Amino acid sequence: METRASMGRLFNPRGVAVVGASANPGKIGYRVVENMVKAGFTGEIYPINPKGGEILGRKVYAKLADVEGAVDVAVLAVPAEHVLGAVGDCAAKDVGHLVVVTSGFSEIGNIALEKELVALAKKHGMRVLGPNIFGIYSATSRLDATFGPGGILPGHVAIVTQSGALGIAMIGKTAAESLGLSALISVGNKSDIDEADLLEYLADDPETRVVLLYVEGVKNGERLVKTLREVTQRKHVVVIKSGRSARGAMAAASHTGSLAGADDVFDDIMRQCGVLRAESVQEAFNWVRFLSTAPLPSGEDAVIVTNGGGIGVLATDACEKYGVRLYDNQPVLATAFADVMPEFGSSKNPVDLTGQATGDDYARSLDAVLARSDMHAAIALYCETALFDTTQFADLLRSVYRRYAEVKPIVFALFGGERIETMIRELRSEGVPVFGDVYEAISVLGSLYRSWRRLTEGNEEAETPPEMDIASIRQVLARAGAQGRKFLLAHEAAEVAAALGLRMPRSILARDLDAAIRAAETIGYPVVMKVVSKDIVHKSDAGGVALDLEDRDEVVDAYQAILRSCLRYKPDAVIEGVEVVEMVRAGVETIVGARQDPSFGPVAMFGLGGIYVEVMKDVSFRAAPVTGRVAREMIGSIRAYPLLLGVRGESRKDIGAAADVVMRLGRLIAECREITDIEVNPLVVYDYGEGVKAVDVRILFRGTQGGDAA
Amino acid sequence: METRASMGRLFNPRGVAVVGASANPGKIGYRVVENMVKAGFTGEIYPINPKGGEILGRKVYAKLADVEGAVDVAVLAVPAEHVLGAVGDCAAKDVGHLVVVTSGFSEIGNIALEKELVALAKKHGMRVLGPNIFGIYSATSRLDATFGPGGILPGHVAIVTQSGALGIAMIGKTAAESLGLSALISVGNKSDIDEADLLEYLADDPETRVVLLYVEGVKNGERLVKTLREVTQRKHVVVIKSGRSARGAMAAASHTGSLAGADDVFDDIMRQCGVLRAESVQEAFNWVRFLSTAPLPSGEDAVIVTNGGGIGVLATDACEKYGVRLYDNQPVLATAFADVMPEFGSSKNPVDLTGQATGDDYARSLDAVLARSDMHAAIALYCETALFDTTQFADLLRSVYRRYAEVKPIVFALFGGERIETMIRELRSEGVPVFGDVYEAISVLGSLYRSWRRLTEGNEEAETPPEMDIASIRQVLARAGAQGRKFLLAHEAAEVAAALGLRMPRSILARDLDAAIRAAETIGYPVVMKVVSKDIVHKSDAGGVALDLEDRDEVVDAYQAILRSCLRYKPDAVIEGVEVVEMVRAGVETIVGARQDPSFGPVAMFGLGGIYVEVMKDVSFRAAPVTGRVAREMIGSIRAYPLLLGVRGESRKDIGAAADVVMRLGRLIAECREITDIEVNPLVVYDYGEGVKAVDVRILFRGTQGGDAA
Repeated sequence: METRASMGRLFNPRGVAVVGASANPGKIGYRVVENMVKAGFTGEIYPINPKGGEILGRKVYAKLADVEGAVDVAVLAVPAEHVLGAVGDCAAKDVGHLVVVTSGFSEIGNIALEKELVALAKKHGMRVLGPNIFGIYSATSRLDATFGPGGILPGHVAIVTQSGALGIAMIGKTAAESLGLSALISVGNKSDIDEADLLEYLADDPETRVVLLYVEGVKNGERLVKTLREVTQRKHVVVIKSGRSARGAMAAASHTGSLAGADDVFDDIMRQCGVLRAESVQEAFNWVRFLSTAPLPSGEDAVIVTNGGGIGVLATDACEKYGVRLYDNQPVLATAFADVMPEFGSSKNPVDLTGQATGDDYARSLDAVLARSDMHAAIALYCETALFDTTQFADLLRSVYRRYAEVKPIVFALFGGERIETMIRELRSEGVPVFGDVYEAISVLGSLYRSWRRLTEGNEEAETPPEMDIASIRQVLARAGAQGRKFLLAHEAAEVAAALGLRMPRSILARDLDAAIRAAETIGYPVVMKVVSKDIVHKSDAGGVALDLEDRDEVVDAYQAILRSCLRYKPDAVIEGVEVVEMVRAGVETIVGARQDPSFGPVAMFGLGGIYVEVMKDVSFRAAPVTGRVAREMIGSIRAYPLLLGVRGESRKDIGAAADVVMRLGRLIAECREITDIEVNPLVVYDYGEGVKAVDVRILFRGTQGGDAA
Repeated sequence: METRASMGRLFNPRGVAVVGASANPGKIGYRVVENMVKAGFTGEIYPINPKGGEILGRKVYAKLADVEGAVDVAVLAVPAEHVLGAVGDCAAKDVGHLVVVTSGFSEIGNIALEKELVALAKKHGMRVLGPNIFGIYSATSRLDATFGPGGILPGHVAIVTQSGALGIAMIGKTAAESLGLSALISVGNKSDIDEADLLEYLADDPETRVVLLYVEGVKNGERLVKTLREVTQRKHVVVIKSGRSARGAMAAASHTGSLAGADDVFDDIMRQCGVLRAESVQEAFNWVRFLSTAPLPSGEDAVIVTNGGGIGVLATDACEKYGVRLYDNQPVLATAFADVMPEFGSSKNPVDLTGQATGDDYARSLDAVLARSDMHAAIALYCETALFDTTQFADLLRSVYRRYAEVKPIVFALFGGERIETMIRELRSEGVPVFGDVYEAISVLGSLYRSWRRLTEGNEEAETPPEMDIASIRQVLARAGAQGRKFLLAHEAAEVAAALGLRMPRSILARDLDAAIRAAETIGYPVVMKVVSKDIVHKSDAGGVALDLEDRDEVVDAYQAILRSCLRYKPDAVIEGVEVVEMVRAGVETIVGARQDPSFGPVAMFGLGGIYVEVMKDVSFRAAPVTGRVAREMIGSIRAYPLLLGVRGESRKDIGAAADVVMRLGRLIAECREITDIEVNPLVVYDYGEGVKAVDVRILFRGTQGGDAA
C-alpha cells in the first residue's frame, strides 16, 4: 500500500514546486505555473528560479530550500544537465514525486543520465514521472501541472499517454468535445512510474470511471497485465496502441525506443484483460465519452427504432460487427409497438416506423423500449425526411435521453442536412450520445457491452492448478544446463513431459527380439520400431525404422530386417537394441506453446497444427498462467475451432484435454522462468473422452547452472 | 445505343409533366413542382390535375392531353390505383420516361400491378423509373423532380439509391457537406430501369466524375457486373451495400423484398469490378467527396509530414490498413527535408518535424514533397501544441492545398481543440480534404489509390479462351436429362471433365487378371483396384478395394483377394471385373467450382480444399468467365496462398495449371447456362511444372431435355 499512498501524494499534493519557473510566457517554466494558477490548484504553488522575482503575482523562490511549506511534488523544467542537481535539492526538501518535464534522456539515447536520475531519486525514496513529458493533471486537487493549453474540464475520464504531442492535443480535443477528465498523465520515457502504477491509483480514485491509455510500447508487461485484469473488474479501460502494422511498429520503435511487441499478442492479451482496444483516437474518444456517462445495461437485448428501412439494415450489420445483440421475440415486439406502428411499418427489430413517423411516434416507441424490462438498450435512428417537422426534434431527443439517462443505455444516429448537423453538435456538447453515422453510434454501444460483460463476469474462478512435478523438471534443466546446453534432448524433453503430466506416445527400449515382442504387446499394436545405436545417426537411411507393425509376426520380421539392414549399412555398428514406440493414431493436430514474451512475460499459445499455423496464423495468446475457462476461450477463439467441435459428421474432439495441456504449459512457464520456450507440436486431439497425445515436445531454457534463475 | 439515347431524354427532358400535382404544400405532388421551380429547371414544367388552377404561379393542366409542348418525362404522383390510367395518358402523349413516385407495388406484395405497369409502358416504348421512389435530380438540366428538401448543389457526384428514406436524407447531407451532385436517382423497386441502365448513362455524362451506389439487393447482377467493369475504367465507383451480416441480410430481404446475395460473393465481385465498397454512409461520403476533386496520383509513394511522433505511427498503421504505400528512399528523404528538420526530428517517413515545428516548417516540408516527382502524395498531420501559433494556420493550409490541388493528392488530419475543430469545419466547407482523425484522412487517400489502380490497369487482356469441347458436354447433359436426372453420374462427369480438358486419374476396366496387370502397367504403379459389380454397392465393406498396389505381384495378390472377399461377402454376385485406377499422389488439395449465382449469374470459385474450405471459409469468387490474370488473382487472394507458393521448404506449386482449371470452369459456366453447379474437389495441385489432377468432379444441371436452356 506504500505505492498507493505515495501515488495519492502525486495526485493530491499539499505543495508543488516548479523548478525552472520562468517569467517568459514563451517558456515551459512559465506555462506550467500559469496553468496551475488558472486551474485553481488547491495546494501551494512554489515557483523556483535563482533569479527570484514574481510570476503571475506569485513569489519566485531562489531555491527550493527557501520554501517553508511541504512540497510533495516538484515539476522539473530545467535543462537536462541541471536535472541531477535539482533532484538533490528535492531530496533535501523531502519531495515525494519528481515530475520531470525535461527531455534529452533515453529518447535521444542518453540512457545513462536517465538511469542516474532514477537511481538518485530511489535512493531518497522519491518516485519519478517522466522524463520527457508535458506534466500531470489531477481533477481532485485542481492541479494542472502541464504546459498544455489549459482549460481542462473536470470529469470522470483518466487519460494516461505515452505520446506528449498527442496528449497535449488531447487537452484541446477534450475541451472541444466537453469531455471531462479526472486525470491526465504524461508518462513519457516511463523511467520509473509506468501505466501499472497509475492504474493502481486510478482503480481506487472515486472520480475516475473510465481509463484511456495511449501506448506505443510496453516495458513491464507482466505487471501491467496483472493490474489491468484487476482494474477492468471495476472500471472501463480503453487502450489505443499504435504500431499495429509492421511498418508502424518500426516507426514506433524509432520514435520512442520502445520495443513494440507483436501486435497480435498485444491484441489477445488486452482482450483477456477485458480492455477495449480502439483503433483510432476518434473511436477511443467516442467510447470513453459514452462509457463515462452511460448506465450499465441489465441484459444483452437491444432494440433499434428507425424511420428508414435502409438505415435499419445498416444498423443491423453494425450490431453484428460490434457485438450488440438484438431483441428477438417477435410476438412481444408486435404487441409492444402495436400502438405506434403505421400501415407499412414493421415491428420486427429494427422497428421501422417508416418515413411517415412523427416525433411523437418516435418518443412513444422509445418509451415502449424503456418500459419493458426485457429490452435492455435502445438505438434510435433518424433519416431526415422532407415532411417531418424537425423544429422540436432536439427538445424531443433531449427529453427522451433524460428519461433514459440513468436507466438504460441509448444511442442516437441522425442523418440529414445542416439542421441535423447543427443539432448533433448541440446535443453532443450537452453530453447526449448523438452521432452522424450509424456505425459510430453502434460502435459506442458495443464498447459498453463488451466492457459490461467483463465487469459482470467477476473474478476468474479460483482453481486448483494442475498437479505437476516442478522439482523434477528443474532437475532435468539443471543436468542439461550443467552440460552447457540451452535446449533439451528428446529423452530429457520426454522426462519433462512426464513430470508435466502430458501423455506422450509410449516407448520401450528392447535389447533383443523377445523383449521387442514383449514391449509391443505391452504398448499394444500397431507399433513403430527404431534402431538404437550411437553409430547410426540417420536411422531411416540405414533401414533402421519400421512403421505400422500390426502383429507379432510383423514385429519379428521387422526386427530381423532392421538388424540386417543396419549391419549391411554399417558393419561395425554397435547396436544396443530397438526402441518400440506406440504408433500415434490420427486426430486433429494442434500446437500448444508457452514462452517468456519480451513485452508481457509468461504467455501461452494455442493454434491449429501442421502447416496451417504458419500460413493461416490461426493462433491465440494469453498471459500465463491461465485458468481452465481462459484455456477453453483460447481454444474457442481460433478460426479453425469448428474442427474441434466436429464438422462434416466428425465427432466432437476432447477440447477439455487440450485445455488441460494449455493450463499445464501456462503454469510451467509462469513458475519456471528459466524456461524460455516450450512447444508441444503436434498435440494430437482425439474424440471426446479419448484425450490427447503430445507427439513432440521442444524446450529451450536459459543456460544457468542452478536451474532456479528468473 | 437506343437505351443511352433514351436515358439522355430522362436526364435532359424538354418538358416534364407532374401527374398528380397538388396545390397543398403537404402533398408530394406539390413538393415535386416546388423543387422543379426552385431548382430552375431548364425545360418546361407541366403540373397536371383535373382540378386545374395554379401552383406556384404555374398553370395546372386538367389532363396531359391538354399540354401542347413535348413531354419527355412524366412524374406520376397519383395513388396506385390511378397509375395505369396515367400510363395510358402518357403513352398517348409520346412520353419517354415514367418516374413513378407512387408506392404500393411489389414492396407491399402487389407484384401483379407492378408487372402490369411495366408491360403497359413497354408496349408503348416507355421506360419506368420506380415505382416507390422519391424522384430524380439531374444537374445538366437543373431538374429536381423529387419530393426531397431541395437545395441540391450541382457538382460531380452521381448518387443512385435503392433506399428512399436514406436518399432523401442524403440530399440534406450533401448540402451540409457542400458536396455537389451531377445526378441523384431513386431506383426503388427497379421494375424496369436499374443501376446498370443508369451507370451506362452516367459513364458518358461529362459532369459525373464519381458514382455512389446504395444497394440493398441485386436483381440482374450479371449485367450490373458487366457495366461496372466498363464504368470503373473511366470513373470512380463507390458502393454501399447493406445486409453484410446474416441478420442484416434478413432485415434487407424483409424490407425491400430483394434477394440479398451472399455478402462474400458481392464483396469479391465488387473488388473484381474495381468498385470501392464502403461500410458506412459516412465513409462513402468521405470517399466520394475526395474522389470528385482530387487529382490522380502519378505513382504509389506517399509521404507523411507530422509534428508528432505518435500520430505519425498511427498514420503508418492506417496506411497499411488502407493500402497506401509509403515512400522509402531514406537518403533522398534526408536530403529533401534537411533544411526544415529540427534537432530531434526524423526525416524518415513519417517525416517528424517535432512539436517545435512552425507553420512555415510545415509549408516548406509539404512543398518539398510537391517538388519531387518521385513523391506522389502527401499526408499532413498536425497535433495542436501549446506553443504553435494557429491564427494563420487555416490560411497556410488553404494555400498549401491550392498549390497541390491540381497536381498531387493531399490529405490533412488535424487534432486539437475548439479552434482546430472550427478550422476543420471551415476548410471542409471550402472543399479542402481536412479531417479530425488520421484514419479517416488516410481512408480517403486509400480509396483514391484503389480506384486509380483500377483506372490505370486498363482493360483485361483479350485472351484466347481455353479450348474445350462444349458440344460433347451438351450431349452428355442431354443424355442424362433424357433420363430425368439433374445430376451426372461419375462416368458422365468424367466424360465432361475430359471434354473440358481436365486431367483426372486414369482408369481402366479389366475383366480378368491379365487385363488388370496390363491396365496397371499402362497406367503405371502404384494403382488402386476396385471391384466392378452391380451387385456390390459398398465396395470397401465387401473387401472389394485395394489401395497402393506397387508392383505386378501385389496386383496379382490383390486381384485374387478382391474376388475371394467379394464372393464370400455375396456368393451370388455377378462380377464384371475390376477397375484399375491411377493412385493419386499427394499434393495441395484445392477446390475449384463454378455456379449460376442467383444474384450475379455465372460465378467461379477457388478455395483451399479439404475440411478447411468449410471451416476457414478461405475461398474467393469472381464473375465468370475469368481471364488468366483474374484466375491467378483469385488464387492469390486466399489466405492459404502461401501453401501454393511453397512454405517451410516445400517447393512452389503449379499455380498456372490451377488457374487454367479455374478459367475452364468459368468459361463452361458462362457458356452452358444449363449447368447450375460444377465442382472439382479436390483438385490436387503438384509442384511447378507437374500440373494438377481433378480427383472428383460433380455436376448439377437444369433438367431440360435439349440441354440448351438458359
